[in-house]
Amino acid sequence: MTPLLDITPLDTTPLDTVLAAARDFLGERLSTNASIREQHSRGEDANPPVLPDAVAFVESTEEVSRLLALCHAQGVPVTPFGAGTSLEGHVVPVRRGISLDLSRMNAVLEVNAEDMDCLVEPGVTRHQLNDFLRDQGLFFPVDPGSHCTLGGMVATRASGTNAVRYGTMREAVMGLEVVLADGRVITTGGRTRKAANGYDLTRLMIGSEGTLGVVTKIRLRLHGIPEATTAAVCQFDSLQAAVETVIMTMQAGIPVARIELADAEQMRASIAYSKLPYAPLPTLFLEFHGSPNGVREQAEAVEALAAEMGGKGFAWAEDAETRGRLWKARHDAWWAANALYPGCRGITTDVCVPISRLAEAITGAKALAEAAGQNTCIVGHVGDGNYHVVILFPADDPEGLEKAWALDRQIVAQGLALGGTCSGEHGIGLGKREFLVQEHGAEVLDIMRGLKATLDPKGILNPGKLFLN
Amino acid sequence: MTPLLDITPLDTTPLDTVLAAARDFLGERLSTNASIREQHSRGEDANPPVLPDAVAFVESTEEVSRLLALCHAQGVPVTPFGAGTSLEGHVVPVRRGISLDLSRMNAVLEVNAEDMDCLVEPGVTRHQLNDFLRDQGLFFPVDPGSHCTLGGMVATRASGTNAVRYGTMREAVMGLEVVLADGRVITTGGRTRKAANGYDLTRLMIGSEGTLGVVTKIRLRLHGIPEATTAAVCQFDSLQAAVETVIMTMQAGIPVARIELADAEQMRASIAYSKLPYAPLPTLFLEFHGSPNGVREQAEAVEALAAEMGGKGFAWAEDAETRGRLWKARHDAWWAANALYPGCRGITTDVCVPISRLAEAITGAKALAEAAGQNTCIVGHVGDGNYHVVILFPADDPEGLEKAWALDRQIVAQGLALGGTCSGEHGIGLGKREFLVQEHGAEVLDIMRGLKATLDPKGILNPGKLFLN
Repeated sequence: MTPLLDITPLDTTPLDTVLAAARDFLGERLSTNASIREQHSRGEDANPPVLPDAVAFVESTEEVSRLLALCHAQGVPVTPFGAGTSLEGHVVPVRRGISLDLSRMNAVLEVNAEDMDCLVEPGVTRHQLNDFLRDQGLFFPVDPGSHCTLGGMVATRASGTNAVRYGTMREAVMGLEVVLADGRVITTGGRTRKAANGYDLTRLMIGSEGTLGVVTKIRLRLHGIPEATTAAVCQFDSLQAAVETVIMTMQAGIPVARIELADAEQMRASIAYSKLPYAPLPTLFLEFHGSPNGVREQAEAVEALAAEMGGKGFAWAEDAETRGRLWKARHDAWWAANALYPGCRGITTDVCVPISRLAEAITGAKALAEAAGQNTCIVGHVGDGNYHVVILFPADDPEGLEKAWALDRQIVAQGLALGGTCSGEHGIGLGKREFLVQEHGAEVLDIMRGLKATLDPKGILNPGKLFLN
Repeated sequence: MTPLLDITPLDTTPLDTVLAAARDFLGERLSTNASIREQHSRGEDANPPVLPDAVAFVESTEEVSRLLALCHAQGVPVTPFGAGTSLEGHVVPVRRGISLDLSRMNAVLEVNAEDMDCLVEPGVTRHQLNDFLRDQGLFFPVDPGSHCTLGGMVATRASGTNAVRYGTMREAVMGLEVVLADGRVITTGGRTRKAANGYDLTRLMIGSEGTLGVVTKIRLRLHGIPEATTAAVCQFDSLQAAVETVIMTMQAGIPVARIELADAEQMRASIAYSKLPYAPLPTLFLEFHGSPNGVREQAEAVEALAAEMGGKGFAWAEDAETRGRLWKARHDAWWAANALYPGCRGITTDVCVPISRLAEAITGAKALAEAAGQNTCIVGHVGDGNYHVVILFPADDPEGLEKAWALDRQIVAQGLALGGTCSGEHGIGLGKREFLVQEHGAEVLDIMRGLKATLDPKGILNPGKLFLN
């Protein structure tokens, strides 16, 4: 466990002012308890944890608004916290202040089955929402691997295995209620499928990582549970052959619902961790949604492409239980990789490239890892060109993390050179700030900073994230 | 023809300074010719035209940058101009200054068939792009009715008949090159299918109507021309029955590529103007894209739903020529409506509502029109809940336009009360500024103004649009 950073505390006067006033309406839900502060000092990433001065468990928009107004007046930092599953240090309160825990705001407020939309609070998790929707024949497709909250997913513009068919949070969110830094509450977007009604404040907030406002309500677009669903698994002798199959599938316009890659090493990890009945070979996991005929047509088309590339054992999984096990294993890939070598832990890259450069990017990443002598597992939402290289290092090696980050930097640089982005879905947080400058250039970062200063002039919202310095 | 407004000219010193400096690099492409200024005084809407002081026909990003830097330094207004097809006064230079004509920046710079994306200049029209793409098996789906430029389509977050399947400009644009008010040039977005890499500047620019920057390059997502395409036409005895068919189709999740409504009056207009071989009854025009089996399955499903609602003569149009005539007639609906009553002209509403409220919204609009004694034609991209009421008035009646606008206001108010938006696709411009405040509230408008002030501190970019005052 990384030691807690020793950071000089804020001048206590503004903080004490905020805490005294906030205790009036939060009572015991404003906590300075040591173990609660420790739980809010980090996400699931390898960044050094930092203790917040206090944790506020808010239960309403009004409480968020009152608390932010106080913090704004006093210049006290606020770091939003959902389920704490960030992989890039988003929830680490690097300038201390208040960790704003939204997990108790977890009501599903509306489901409009006719219009296929819903309104939820930010602490609702994607699992909770789908359990709630199931008997209405609806589902919400965006599915990061973790038990994350929808608020966190808005903040990081999350995606997952279904994005290749259904899009990411950018497409899934129709509108938001947002509390601004000074406590003002606004509603963005609306309930229509499209609109040409002024600046797109909804999309400005999506992916802003808690630096522009705190999301307190989310309107989401839902989808009908497809009439038919089939999954398939196909294994290859080489990573290249698996990736080429993905590229051909996408270029043929086959509307796959999921097309996921695991390399041989990841398969070894998942076979051990999730008891998957496959060989430790490069593998594609696929899912098809549609009418019974449509699903068959799609699956046969991909099977033919895979066969051209030497794909073996195109195994079908039509029953829901087998499919459930398969996707659970895929979602547990991060944990499986972390468990592969006893005493090791991992960090993960999140590069995304244009689909035509995917084979080059993944085989190139593998070559860099081999040259660096690092153990890695690769998984990817490859239909979107997004791949994660999990870099494993001995937790007790003082240089292990530095070496892992050095490889991370090389893989990102390679991805950027191929026309890619440093983050497909995890966001920037602390870990990818230097890459953001490389990717966009200083001028674009200046413009982003200008927008931040307009909406949060005192810089209280999740300070230290996205931008270096 | 509405008379030109008599507006007090700007202090000529800053303008003369800009014109003298700009003439150095634009030469004769900086014009003060009266007929060229008149051509740049209006779009296709009924707002009073205003003459710009000069028109600049730019040919490169560098020219745009140099010109904006000059105008920024001198505080001279700049109004971007593409094909001049705006329906909401976007191109009217209400504070005079310079009309920035981008129509000569019309090169297709890149097509990446493997990744299905392209890079174009803003003066490329959607027709030009699709002609260019056709022999590569690709197409660009967003299709407003007019011969508009892609730059104008970015500015207004345009959509059209295919949006129900392929999305609007919000989904179609992957990235932009933008010249900011002070002449700085930035690149937003990228070539990957998804990214979680900082604030979404691309979507902030899309729909900003030329008030935040001037778009000089556009990266667009393309689609493969579907293996099979079928169109169908179905007629109904009542508007209600036609709209209910749409609602059931959308709720069943049938992935129609197009589902367009014309009311009896619009059909009368289009039969006369486009020689359509149908009866003057409420009509749905549909198109299905997919595999041959998939297309058949979709069309049969909609045919069954239409039959339930008493739909008659589900006529199929499998050949490309018949389909071409059909969609040309649909795209010409605005001109057909304007030609229906000799001596009349039209304005059009652009309300969009949640699909469950669509029947109520359209029959309600028709009732308001009848109560007002106004002739109207209704067309709609009804799969998206978007409908246009074309309100016709005698061009020589001095009160005609005022009466039309009064009905427009009633229809918008009704749409907003049903959870809708005042603009599905035409944008705000001059004509819908009061509705934008009604829809979002003053606080949201203040935030939009704040963002505008950050990016365009002197307010030179398309002043007078989006915001009242």
